[in-house]
Parts: sequence; C-alpha cells; structure tokens
Amino acid sequence: MISVGIVGGTGYTGVELLRILLRHPNAEVKVLTSRTENGRRVDDMFPSLRGHTDLQYSDLNLDELKKCDVVFFATPHGVAMKHAAELVAANTKVIDLAADFRLQDLAQFEKWYGLDHACPDLLKDSVYGLSELNRDKIKQANVIGNPGCYPTTVQLGLAPVLKADALVKPDSIIIDAKSGVSGAGRKASLGMIYSENADNFKAYGVAGHRHHPEIVEALENISGQKGVFNEILFVPHLVPMIRGMLSTIYIDLTDAGAEADLQALYEQFYANEQFVDVMPAGSSPETRSVRGANQLRIALYKPQPKKLVILAAQDNLVKGAAGQAVQNMNLMFGFAEEAGLQGIGLLP
Amino acid sequence: MISVGIVGGTGYTGVELLRILLRHPNAEVKVLTSRTENGRRVDDMFPSLRGHTDLQYSDLNLDELKKCDVVFFATPHGVAMKHAAELVAANTKVIDLAADFRLQDLAQFEKWYGLDHACPDLLKDSVYGLSELNRDKIKQANVIGNPGCYPTTVQLGLAPVLKADALVKPDSIIIDAKSGVSGAGRKASLGMIYSENADNFKAYGVAGHRHHPEIVEALENISGQKGVFNEILFVPHLVPMIRGMLSTIYIDLTDAGAEADLQALYEQFYANEQFVDVMPAGSSPETRSVRGANQLRIALYKPQPKKLVILAAQDNLVKGAAGQAVQNMNLMFGFAEEAGLQGIGLLP
Amino acid sequence: MISVGIVGGTGYTGVELLRILLRHPNAEVKVLTSRTENGRRVDDMFPSLRGHTDLQYSDLNLDELKKCDVVFFATPHGVAMKHAAELVAANTKVIDLAADFRLQDLAQFEKWYGLDHACPDLLKDSVYGLSELNRDKIKQANVIGNPGCYPTTVQLGLAPVLKADALVKPDSIIIDAKSGVSGAGRKASLGMIYSENADNFKAYGVAGHRHHPEIVEALENISGQKGVFNEILFVPHLVPMIRGMLSTIYIDLTDAGAEADLQALYEQFYANEQFVDVMPAGSSPETRSVRGANQLRIALYKPQPKKLVILAAQDNLVKGAAGQAVQNMNLMFGFAEEAGLQGIGLLP
Amino acid sequence: MISVGIVGGTGYTGVELLRILLRHPNAEVKVLTSRTENGRRVDDMFPSLRGHTDLQYSDLNLDELKKCDVVFFATPHGVAMKHAAELVAANTKVIDLAADFRLQDLAQFEKWYGLDHACPDLLKDSVYGLSELNRDKIKQANVIGNPGCYPTTVQLGLAPVLKADALVKPDSIIIDAKSGVSGAGRKASLGMIYSENADNFKAYGVAGHRHHPEIVEALENISGQKGVFNEILFVPHLVPMIRGMLSTIYIDLTDAGAEADLQALYEQFYANEQFVDVMPAGSSPETRSVRGANQLRIALYKPQPKKLVILAAQDNLVKGAAGQAVQNMNLMFGFAEEAGLQGIGLLP
Repeated sequence: MISVGIVGGTGYTGVELLRILLRHPNAEVKVLTSRTENGRRVDDMFPSLRGHTDLQYSDLNLDELKKCDVVFFATPHGVAMKHAAELVAANTKVIDLAADFRLQDLAQFEKWYGLDHACPDLLKDSVYGLSELNRDKIKQANVIGNPGCYPTTVQLGLAPVLKADALVKPDSIIIDAKSGVSGAGRKASLGMIYSENADNFKAYGVAGHRHHPEIVEALENISGQKGVFNEILFVPHLVPMIRGMLSTIYIDLTDAGAEADLQALYEQFYANEQFVDVMPAGSSPETRSVRGANQLRIALYKPQPKKLVILAAQDNLVKGAAGQAVQNMNLMFGFAEEAGLQGIGLLP
Repeated sequence: MISVGIVGGTGYTGVELLRILLRHPNAEVKVLTSRTENGRRVDDMFPSLRGHTDLQYSDLNLDELKKCDVVFFATPHGVAMKHAAELVAANTKVIDLAADFRLQDLAQFEKWYGLDHACPDLLKDSVYGLSELNRDKIKQANVIGNPGCYPTTVQLGLAPVLKADALVKPDSIIIDAKSGVSGAGRKASLGMIYSENADNFKAYGVAGHRHHPEIVEALENISGQKGVFNEILFVPHLVPMIRGMLSTIYIDLTDAGAEADLQALYEQFYANEQFVDVMPAGSSPETRSVRGANQLRIALYKPQPKKLVILAAQDNLVKGAAGQAVQNMNLMFGFAEEAGLQGIGLLP
Repeated sequence: MISVGIVGGTGYTGVELLRILLRHPNAEVKVLTSRTENGRRVDDMFPSLRGHTDLQYSDLNLDELKKCDVVFFATPHGVAMKHAAELVAANTKVIDLAADFRLQDLAQFEKWYGLDHACPDLLKDSVYGLSELNRDKIKQANVIGNPGCYPTTVQLGLAPVLKADALVKPDSIIIDAKSGVSGAGRKASLGMIYSENADNFKAYGVAGHRHHPEIVEALENISGQKGVFNEILFVPHLVPMIRGMLSTIYIDLTDAGAEADLQALYEQFYANEQFVDVMPAGSSPETRSVRGANQLRIALYKPQPKKLVILAAQDNLVKGAAGQAVQNMNLMFGFAEEAGLQGIGLLP
Repeated sequence: MISVGIVGGTGYTGVELLRILLRHPNAEVKVLTSRTENGRRVDDMFPSLRGHTDLQYSDLNLDELKKCDVVFFATPHGVAMKHAAELVAANTKVIDLAADFRLQDLAQFEKWYGLDHACPDLLKDSVYGLSELNRDKIKQANVIGNPGCYPTTVQLGLAPVLKADALVKPDSIIIDAKSGVSGAGRKASLGMIYSENADNFKAYGVAGHRHHPEIVEALENISGQKGVFNEILFVPHLVPMIRGMLSTIYIDLTDAGAEADLQALYEQFYANEQFVDVMPAGSSPETRSVRGANQLRIALYKPQPKKLVILAAQDNLVKGAAGQAVQNMNLMFGFAEEAGLQGIGLLP
C-alpha cells in the first residue's frame, strides 16, 4: 500500500480521485488539503462518501505531503509547479491534473495561462501522462502532467493514423468537441448555473482555447512532425449534461489513407489496451456508455472516400482526468494498470 | 381571416403550428385531423392549449380540407403528396412540413425515403420554402415543401458566402450539427425514451442522413454551381435538450475569401431580415436564445486565416419547422411576414 | 400607453418582465436599471431580446423613475421599501416582486428577512397582489406586494375550500412543494451550478422557509380565521428543471367536506378566471403545460373519503412572479386583465 | 463462486444486475435470457459492458436455469411465478424483482396486477426481501419477492418509529414520493420519451398505485398492527432525472413521540446497517449522493412539535431494485452482505 496525498480536494476532480482511490487495492489516501475547508470532514461536503472514509481536509502542509509516496494536485493551474520540486526532492512523486506540466513550450504556457513557469527544469524532466502513448516514460517519471480532457480524446482518436505513414493530411484536422458541464469545474460562476445551461447548447472558445496548443504539441510528438498542425481547428461546445465528452474529428485522407483498412489499423493499434475500445464499424460511441468508467471509445467512418470521421467518447472526469491520473499512478508504482479502475459505466 | 387546416395534429410540429396559429391575427384553424384521435379535443391531448381552443381532431376528410385556404401537412413523409393535387385543384394551398416537396431529384427522394413520388408534376411546380432565399417564388406558390430543420441552418448559414463570388471552396464544407430530441418527433420509440437520452451525447446517421441530399440540392441552387457539393460532410448529433439546433459549419476560404470582410458581408446580406440575426463578432449563439422564437442566429469566426467557422442556431420546431411554415403562409397570402411570429424566446 | 420602469433588470424576473412587457399593447418600458451593468444594452446580456428592444441599463435614478407610471422592483428584498414612498408621492405606482410588501406582520418580516422595514405606514396601505383573490383592492392600490411563487400555488389551490364553510380542518394542511431551479434566481452560487443540480432531487428549507409565514398570513386572510394555520407544514423541494412549480397539498376534510362536491366547488369558484384552470377530475397538471404562460392549473383528488389532495402547477417565473405582476399592473391601470398575458405555454 | 441466471436481461434492472454481478467476487452470471434478443451479445445492446463480458442472450430454457444456484427474474410481473416452483424443486433459488412474491394478499395481487397467482403455496413460503428488516428469514428462503422501489423507502424510513411503542399515529401517514424516470423501465412508450419528461414535473397514480397495497401490508408486518394503515396516502411524482428516488413522509406524533429523541432512535436502529445511513440532524439527503450505490439515506425533521418529516433517498435501480436483490442473494448464500455492493455513488 502506498500513501497518497491530494491537494485540492473540494473540486470535481478531487472528489473523483477519492471515489477511485478509496476503492484502490494498493493505495491509501492519507492527506487531503483544502484552502478553505480545513478541519471539515470530506463526507460532510460530499455525502456520497459517507461510510467510505473518515478523511478531513487539512491546510496544505508540505511536510505532511512529503510523507506520501505520491501527491495528486487537483488544483487550479499554477499550484503544482510551486511545490513539485520540493516534493520530488523528498522522493514523493507528483501528478498534476492541471496544466503546469502539460506544455513544454514555455511561451505557449505563459501566453495561455498567464503565468511564468516556476520550475522549467523540472518541467523538462516531467512526462506527459497520456498513459497509452507514453507508458514507458511514465513508469520512470517523478512528475506527470496529466493531459487535458479534450486533448486526451484527440490524441487517442488520432494516434493510429498519425503514427502510420502518410495516411492523412495533418493540416486538415478539424476537431468539433463537446463536453458536459462538469468539465468547467466546481466554481460559483454565473455562467455555470443550472438555468443558464440546462436545455441549451452552444459553442465557446471558438477564437482560441487553452487546449489548442496542448493538442498541437501532443500531435507533433505523436507523429514526429513539427509545424504541420498549426492550422488545425478546435471548436469546443457545451452540452447540457454533467459528465461526458465526445470529439468528432474530421481529417482528409491521402490516397494511401483512402485505400488503407483503417478499422483494422485502429483495432490492432489498441488491441492490448483495456481502456481504449475501438467499436465495430457502424457504431456510435455514446458518452453514457463510459459514465464513471476509465474508458475511451472510438468509432470510425469514411462517409466520403477521402475523408475520415473519428468519434471519440470518454467521461471527462475519469479517462479525461482522475481515472487517467490513477492509471498513471499505477504505471509509476508498478501496480496492475487496471487497479482501482475496473468500474463499469453507469448506464442508464 | 383565412381558414386553415392541419393534417396530423398530434405530433410536435402539429402542436407547434397550433401554438402559433391560435394567436395569428389573420388565420383561423378550422380543421385538425388525426388518424387515431378522431373526436378527441386537442386540449385534452395537449393541456397547454386549454383555454385557447375548442378544436377537436377529425378524420382526414378532403372535402373539409378543400374548404380551407391553406392546409399544413404535419404528417410522416408520403402523406402530403397523396392529397396535394386534389387540394390545389380546389384552390387550397398546401404547405408540407415533411419531405414530399423538398427534393426535386426523384431518384434521391426514392432512395432516401423509400417511396415513389405520387405527383412528380406537382413537385416541379412546388417551391422550396426557405422564406429568406425564395421569397418571391413562395409568394406565387400553390405547394410549398417546408425545409428540413438541419438544411435551414446550413442554407441560411452559408448563403452569403455562396452567393458571393469565389470566396469559399465548396467541396470543403463540413457540417457538424447538433439537435435537441424533439427533432425526432413524438413517437413511442425505445431510442427516444428519457433514460436513453438524458445526460448523454452521441452522433447518429454518420454514414448517411436524409438531410444530406436536401442540403446538396439546396446549396447548388443557392450558389448556382452543380456538382461541387457532393463531398461535403454532414454529421448530426443528439443533444439532451428538448428544443434547439446548432450547426457548426467549417469551410475553407479562397484567397479572396481570406481578404474579404465576411462579418460585413453577412450583416449586409441579412440587413432587412427580421428572422435572421447576424450577431456581433465574438458572439456565440445559444439555442436557448431562440427557444420558441422564429429566429435563426449566426456568428462567424476565422480562427485561421483561411478557415471560416459559421455557427447557426435555431429552434428546430420553429424556424426549423412550424414557424417557417407560417412565415411561408404569410408570404403566400400577402400578410405581414412577421404576423403571428413575434414571440420572444423563452430565456431562461 | 403607460410608461414603465424596471429596477433590477439582470435577474430572471427582470428579463421575464421584459419578455412580457415588450409585447404589451398598453405599456412601454422606458427605464431599466442595474447596479452593475450601467450603459450595457440589455440584449447584449440576454440575446433572446435582440431585435425586440434597444433598451440599455442605467443606474437607479429616482427622478427618471418618477416619470414612469409604474415601477417594478425585480430586486433583492429590501430595495423597494427604500424608494416606494418617494415614488408614490410622485404619483408613480410600485409593484415589488420581492418580499418588502408581502407580510403585514413586521416581526415576521424582520425575523425572516433580517431587515427593519423602512416604511411600515406605506406597508399598511399596500395591497397583497394575488390578483384573483384581491382584485378590487389591487385596482385601487398604489403599492403592490407581489406574492411569492410558492404562496401563489397554495392560496389559489386552497381558496375555494377555505372560503367555504367548515369543509376542511385548517391545521391539517401539508404542502409538499417542488420548484425548478430558476426560482432561486440568477446568482453566482456554488449550490446553483449545473452539475450540482442536474439529475438530482432534494428537499431544502425543511426546518423553515420564508414563504411559511407568508402562507400563514395569506391563508388567515382568505379564510378569515386567525391562529389556525400555525402548524401547517411546508416542505419545498428542488427539481432539476429550469421553470415550473408544483405544490401537492394534503388536507383533512370535515364530514361536510367529505360529502361536498369539491370538483364542482372549484370549477364554480374559478369559472370566470382565465388564468386559473380547474382541470377535469382525474387530470394531473404538468408544469410544462404552463411553461412560459400566466396560468395556474389545479386538479383535485380524494384518494380517501376524508382526505383531499390538491395539485397546483404554475410557471414560477410567470404566474409565480412576472406574469402576475403584469396582471396586477393591468388591474391597476384598468387595462384588459389579459393584456400581454395571452401567450400559450411552450410544449414540448 | 455460485452460478447465476438472469431472466429478462434487456431492461434497466437487468443491466443493473449485470453491472453489479460482473464485479461480484462470489458469483458468476452464466445464463442471460431475453424473449427478443436470442443470440445477441449483451454488450452490443449495452456498450457500457464492452470489455467486461462475453455473455449472449439466450431463449428462456428451464434446464439451463436449473443448473444455476440462483435465478433473478428481471421481468414483467407474472413471469417468475410461472417458473419458480420448478426451479425451487431443482434446488435453484429464485429472486423476483417484479411483484409476484411481494403481496401475501392474493385478492390485492389480483386486483392490482390483473393476474391470478400461479403458485399461492410457494408464495406463502416466499420471503419479502427487505434485507434489513427480514434478514433472518431471507437467509433461509428459497424464493424472494424483492420489494418495490417506493416501498423500500417507506419501510426503511418508518421502521424505527413503527417498531417502537406508540410514538406515532399510524393512520396519519402521508407519503409524497418522487422518482426518476428509469423507475418506469425500458419500454417504447409515448409517455416516457425524452421530450415528454425533460424540464417537466407531475404527479401520477394519485387515485391509486400498485405500491399502495404493498406498503400497507409491509407496514402492518413491521408494526404488528393490522388495519391501521388503510387510510395512508401515497402520491408518487415523476422527476426529470434518470435515477433517484426521494420519499417525503409526514406523520403525526403522539405525546410520547413528541418527547422522544427520534434522531437517536434512528441512529441506534440502523447503527449496524452499512446500507442505511441516518444523516446528522439538519441534513437533506440528495438522490445524487446515492447514484449507483446500494445505499438509502434518511434525515429527520420536526418542523412542528407533533409532526415528523422523514426524508428517505435511494437509487431506485440499486437499493430500490438490483442492489437489494444482490444483497438478498448475499444473505441467502452466506456471503459478506456487502459483497459486490461497495461501489461509491457517482457524484457529480
């Protein structure tokens, strides 16, 4: 059993980490911090946890966190990078669910997050935690930048064709993405209240979104091609549902791509992945099929001979956040990759 | 006051026609038919109408319908074409809210709807009822094919750039469309029940959808270019909301298009249209802003120099169906185009 | 045409007043205030109003408001009472949609709202604006306290049996009430965000709710009996929907009540009321049947010989707030009572 | 490991049984039947199960079912009673999630379900499967009638005061119950479609509901008092959410009840129950706190000195159906009562 700390346990990724980790066979949450709820029982704030834990929130205390084997940061951007170096020095691994360790390009980080990076050297040593694509590096990492929810769908959706040779035209990629409201976190914000979001649908961030540079950098790494993804389009939308994310990805095929058996390519690429499900031809992945589950489902369509449509669905709080973070933890500590992550989606 | 008949008054477009027409200053609904509810008061089925009408459903009786000035068919595909000729012969105008008079291409009609067309000659004389684009023809028409809900967003969203000269690459069009569940009608179908749709999001019809040929034919007519739209992509999605539709349209710009002031182009194109609203740059049209209103809102983005993103939102049951049908009726009978259609969207 | 001011136009009752008044044949909104949005166009905040008004928010300026014939306060509790006397002195009528003029009992007001009343004398002269029950007084009033949403359902639901002689046992009343989330207003509050309310149901305020004393005082006035309603129970619940309110009211019948034809009693009591609909025996009023409409629907059941169950449904923002306020305005100025209020509920 | 059969695996209780049993440490599902889906993989119908099972639907074959240690009937009323005797004779235990073994009163059964009972003798030997209240009998039972969802909330909500001496007036009980839509099952029915239920609230079954006689019989058994519950009121309502059920129960206290410490009474009564949670005074149990969990949460209020309000929340598909059924199976086979049932509620 390893001991775990969670910094920032009052948000949705925090409570989702608890839901998973309180049932994890190899990990025990020892420390749970909150700036505002010091001393309060976590099950008082989240009654779903009643009967499952006696944990109380505490103030952030680095000495306590250093006693942990791993600390998850379920905090706003900019918190993890302040403390990561000291934790690593104490032999405590760090998994940041915010953006501090997602972008290697410091200029992009500072442009999109408005922050100077506090530890650029540590950033260089950190690993981008897309488990299926960076498994070996994750196993060796001390610091993980857990991917953004949207970028997870895009990378897993595109990796098979991007890693293959010249099947697609990279600059043609269009990502029309849709997310449930929990993706915006647990914040008292007028734009997030029920009556502003129920029975409504809209795009947002069309002119620019923080996940765009993360997607570009990640696709460059996957494909080994620099500079060919700068013109991709990424348009997120807000769906009146709590959890769930679907990205519809459009991409032009080359002649080689048009002739390839892409369904077979995807099935082979993910044949040994238990958390990525390539559905049979003709399927449509529904977000509810992964509600609460650490699973991403993909379906492929070629409605025109040279155009590929990729549908990729996940629970934004699980495979898109807390579940993937635990998957990374499992890799880092040599546990079974599925430990704690075998829950079946709640349908209906 | 004209007298109005509605054939098929138990579905959502039927009750929406009633909601509008019972408040119309120039029209009175005299006949309301249903195959299954003969003799039942309509306000017994739809209590929202209690206090507003004493209408009862009757069996379809052509003699009664012929006494009407206009008959709306809010029926499944294939009903209107059986009766339209006889009604027109009796000097009764016909507005079909199903697909019988949408497609001039008989082969496409038969392919997608599985029906032989009953009156191809009358079809040739009918007018496609996209009010803003075909206003003059509608005024003279005896038979109107009311557009599909998705095609309405696509046509109004694209008309300004397609009617201009060589601003866009027509074969690059991708339409990622999202609809509320009421678009599927009022039917006892397992796939439509609450617990299958709430808190869920999915694509459907990716391999092919009936609105695809309608969109292609309509864009050809708008642009005057044949054969250049065959490869467009149209991918509809289902949103867990009752009403509302948003199409996100992606299109590559030519050099001329990249240099043009498209915001100004759109604002001028629709300057005199009261039911099409070009929002200021940077806006995002929310479906709830048109809930219950005969309005379509458009916003434009150029996230890349040569790529245009068009957002077009409407209420699928109003501007996408019953509202547009009444707008067409107003044109056909010389009423103020806005008569009965000035309701303000219900927000929140 | 009278001129109208609205103080507090950024909340849901404010925008609902605008939706109704911008279509009112006898009234024109001239002034719209906001503490925070001075100078902003209202249709920038609420795009549903685009094309229907050019109004801008202004700071609260009493001199401007005094030029109006009537001023609606769609503000937090405690604002209207600060300005009402000065407005009345200038011959401007006041309709407060908050609680300042609902309770004649000052001690109760101060207990539940935490405010000393600023104008107790004016309070005595004000009229409680339950249109159907206080019509004659409303016609003469200068200041109206518009009822709370829950109390409206309770009073209209109970008035026929309470005004009749000894049909019910008043201390047995139990009100199990359910409201959509918009009833809590438009505020940046953690408890109101989408992901905290969707797919969820709960009671709240069980130990005590501000509408309890308002209900008690109102039922005393209706029945002419003091002190017999103190032990009634009122338990509100929160429903994951935007608009809508249903109160399920339980009451023990006396022997006389058990023998009476209560369905007939209710139908007669409301026979001339266009905004209260007594449904046929066996009906169940759905909230969606009154969505956006100034209508309250009632159904009665006697599942046991001496127990009456009353179901009363309304749109909390219309008959429960803005619609009733306009109905009161119509009475005060001698307009047709239904002016501006004939919209049909949006179903589906 | 015991072997399990599920008859009727296409409904919501069927898929919920699978979600639980596929993770159960002591049970393996061997047979899954469907009248309509013979040969189809269950994960084709319910993609949430992809990767978790290879089960296929088969036709109902009693010989196959007899090989199982236990068979769950997740079928319409009337199916289990046809086959139970033969299964029991083959030493296979039966747990019926429908109503065949809930009511000992045959006249009530035939009145409310319109069926003659097929095996009245076996019914007498069967046990009503409210695990917490009938634990010892369940351990010995061959046939279990799994309780209805509403009755579960009522019995667990009332048991402590009914088993105590003369604290309450039994004929005063009023149950105002609210359920998510999944409680109506997975059926192609017009009344259940999304657009008829979303953003809506209503009562139903006010004149009479099948769960009323079940509640009366159960409360008689709990209290040992016959004939005193006939006049209780039970009014169910439909909430626009998928899962979740809250019963608000009103009851008059005797003088003894008014003086008793009911909070302490409840806490003691359920002190050793891991699936019944008496919340601290002042709490309000939210349905989402038990989403997907085999948990029922209770809170108590005394808003008036002699009136008790009991709030009882559960997931209708888990503690109200499939979860309780597995809890009964655990008891019948001597497994840990919590085996397979330790999942934490999905919040948000």
